[in-house]
Amino acid sequence: MIEQGNMALLTDLYEYTMANGFYQDMKEQRGSFDMFFRKLPDNGRFVVLAGVETALKEMQNFHFEQEDLDYLKGLGLFSQEFLNYLRDFKFKCKVYSVPEGTPVFPREPVVTVEGPLLQAQLFETLLLNVINHQTLIATKARRIVAASKGRAVMEFGARRAQGPASAVYGARAAVIGGCTSTSNLLAGQKFGIPVAGTMAHSWIEAFDNELAAFEAWAKIYPQNCSLLVDTYDVLESGVPHAIKVFDQLATKGYQKFGIRIDSGDITQLSTQARKMLDNAGYPKATITASNALDEHIIQSLVSEGAAIDNFGVGENLITSASSPVLSGVYKLGAVQKDDGIWYPKVKVSASLGKLTLPGRKQIYRLYDPRTGSPFADLVSLRDEKIAENITEMKVLSADPEATKRYRTLRNIQAVELQKEALNEQGQLLTGDPSVFEIQKYSKKKLAELPASKKRLLYPDEYPVFITKDLYEQQQELIEDNRIE
Amino acid sequence: MIEQGNMALLTDLYEYTMANGFYQDMKEQRGSFDMFFRKLPDNGRFVVLAGVETALKEMQNFHFEQEDLDYLKGLGLFSQEFLNYLRDFKFKCKVYSVPEGTPVFPREPVVTVEGPLLQAQLFETLLLNVINHQTLIATKARRIVAASKGRAVMEFGARRAQGPASAVYGARAAVIGGCTSTSNLLAGQKFGIPVAGTMAHSWIEAFDNELAAFEAWAKIYPQNCSLLVDTYDVLESGVPHAIKVFDQLATKGYQKFGIRIDSGDITQLSTQARKMLDNAGYPKATITASNALDEHIIQSLVSEGAAIDNFGVGENLITSASSPVLSGVYKLGAVQKDDGIWYPKVKVSASLGKLTLPGRKQIYRLYDPRTGSPFADLVSLRDEKIAENITEMKVLSADPEATKRYRTLRNIQAVELQKEALNEQGQLLTGDPSVFEIQKYSKKKLAELPASKKRLLYPDEYPVFITKDLYEQQQELIEDNRIE
Repeated sequence: MIEQGNMALLTDLYEYTMANGFYQDMKEQRGSFDMFFRKLPDNGRFVVLAGVETALKEMQNFHFEQEDLDYLKGLGLFSQEFLNYLRDFKFKCKVYSVPEGTPVFPREPVVTVEGPLLQAQLFETLLLNVINHQTLIATKARRIVAASKGRAVMEFGARRAQGPASAVYGARAAVIGGCTSTSNLLAGQKFGIPVAGTMAHSWIEAFDNELAAFEAWAKIYPQNCSLLVDTYDVLESGVPHAIKVFDQLATKGYQKFGIRIDSGDITQLSTQARKMLDNAGYPKATITASNALDEHIIQSLVSEGAAIDNFGVGENLITSASSPVLSGVYKLGAVQKDDGIWYPKVKVSASLGKLTLPGRKQIYRLYDPRTGSPFADLVSLRDEKIAENITEMKVLSADPEATKRYRTLRNIQAVELQKEALNEQGQLLTGDPSVFEIQKYSKKKLAELPASKKRLLYPDEYPVFITKDLYEQQQELIEDNRIE
Repeated sequence: MIEQGNMALLTDLYEYTMANGFYQDMKEQRGSFDMFFRKLPDNGRFVVLAGVETALKEMQNFHFEQEDLDYLKGLGLFSQEFLNYLRDFKFKCKVYSVPEGTPVFPREPVVTVEGPLLQAQLFETLLLNVINHQTLIATKARRIVAASKGRAVMEFGARRAQGPASAVYGARAAVIGGCTSTSNLLAGQKFGIPVAGTMAHSWIEAFDNELAAFEAWAKIYPQNCSLLVDTYDVLESGVPHAIKVFDQLATKGYQKFGIRIDSGDITQLSTQARKMLDNAGYPKATITASNALDEHIIQSLVSEGAAIDNFGVGENLITSASSPVLSGVYKLGAVQKDDGIWYPKVKVSASLGKLTLPGRKQIYRLYDPRTGSPFADLVSLRDEKIAENITEMKVLSADPEATKRYRTLRNIQAVELQKEALNEQGQLLTGDPSVFEIQKYSKKKLAELPASKKRLLYPDEYPVFITKDLYEQQQELIEDNRIE
């Protein structure tokens, strides 16, 4: 089983060499680190934030077994005092996060970890791994579910996922993005997700012929008999045999039937199969399609009028195959020195686009009261007082490469997005929502967004602004760095 | 920790519904399933088989905890007898495999599982998940390592891997494909891989200036002082500060130094940095590059004369970003009925390319004795006697879509590839090689292949043949299916 166990070593070595260094040089200093995204998958405008609850629980559970300490000691890099500190590791950070399931935009700090520099540093790899992965898959699932226009999307990718945990946590993320079920039993067990699936071609082939295979299946699973009809020929063999078996079951009073098509021209096959099932008296028998689908094929199938009730989506969902990397980063925003003051930090870079936002920050979603829809997000310094109702405010684009940086906001509503998620005692403050509660919340937040921002291709822009104070702080720090 | 624990539920539901059906209908029948690949990543001609030892150990360890049985029972789909069978699960399969690390080609059965149909069916998802994933990453690593022309390649992808286990097993696979180290401590601990890494930009930013950060680092890690030099400006600030610190260390007798460049024009920056280090008296100081590298960028850097000693490769390796899915499949080749006879099975399909090879099979690598190199593989029925030295033999292409299917082999040597890997008592027969032993074996097998087959772009063809007997069996079965 992939346990929510000790992932303290799922960490890059350099986090430990740095933590050991911080322990030696600035043990008491605190840092504020932000996780944010830059380039988004599939040229989308947003991602569906996922993995937060998983990451928070891993942070709560961060600890070191004796074998871990022995391993670290064996590397010969760390002081005994630091190893003792790890042995007695006591979580002392505060984590702020945008709620899991929220659509979020580039450059805004979606998770902020504040605490002893050395602890906040140690969490980097784990936090990025978990949230990058689940956000990637939830975002892909959102696209696929949107394309399916209300038909159920089942996550079927376990065999093509990038490793065991990828299958399990990927299924979790897929449900956050809108999938209704998974084929993966471990994900079903772990997260309470309904499991789905019927038979593979091997069942059919194990029998002497298709009809015998169907009849044997119907005997075992009469309550909900779903048959894979494309082993030999969908319309000539599979569907007629399925109807024969449904007839047998119907005389015994059973009535929940379905077929699955896994190859060929799904639009033509499904519409013909639909007619055959309807004519045979089974208008409620469901048709599932499952052959290397993605959001674009599903969009085509729907617009071509394919008679599909459920889509089973495998490799293209579970790996986000068209865009398999989400490169969220974790950057130092501020350091609190012995004097108690937080000093903002910036990372400059040869590429202007990688310039970070300094300081301790908050995000606001900006709603146009005329439409009730959000039209932009705003990142401020956390200490700034942003009114719930902004009458007038000059802001700048968060993107340093934007050509038109200034804009004036008038008569808009601002809603805080980051909330405290873990306190310094390591208590979870998010209410520990179930995966379907997160899905529900996500759907609500997605529904708020104008349709134009959610297009699969060429979505309309959704700006992220920063306040003047934040901008000025950033510019000052750049100047300081130049002078250094 | 990601434990090599109970992965019995890392399985698609339909494997269990089928297994329950097999238990009821053909409990004693045995099946022979083959895992093989079709489409290969990055338009390559082969993949580096990986994950075999991981998968074998998971199969050995396949068992059910009470919570798993309770979960399965709660689904309401399985008979109590079947659940009892799972409770008392006793491995009764035989597994044949090509040794891990071997370059393998499309359509050839790389792993074969023979045993009770219901057991062999249950292993499908797990086996495919593990071997698809690790083979994908080992194959990508092979390409990146080939491009680096002898320079060390370090696996740096933990934060962009698709979930925690993907990072850990991905690092294992990367080493099989030729990487020398990983940044991932859990992979280091679990598989004995050397761990690598120095500092991130956050270390530099936590200090008031770059020199102070470097000096603090040198104090803690004087033995092997590696400094990240691109936080502000590589040539104006980073390298001069690094040299200042190396000078301080050198007076104390230390001499192992290095720098890392993570942004900008790596070729220009590294050649300039090399000159500066050489002029300062540090010709042995190493230069590491690590900015979104892949095999093509590395090939360019090498050919442009970049002065790089080590490459750190992240997201493009750990997700095989340019080709993130390996769609290995697991198909029924034969069923042994009550009469003890194995009946071959074939899966026909609307797409000719998906036609499977029936029967119980063996693979041979065919060597041309004049060159000593392999030039093709041959798949036979397992019962056929293929001589070690073939004087003349008519064979066919394994690809049913090939235009020229027949070929005559003359005076070649044939070496068996599939070996028994797990016996029916669940004993591992592979010798349980370490990850570096597998790497060594893989390098040897790769070295045998002609260079033209290993090109990163447009590799030369490497045919996979089938014997006449296998071909005829396949054709007969197709005829049978048509008549059905």
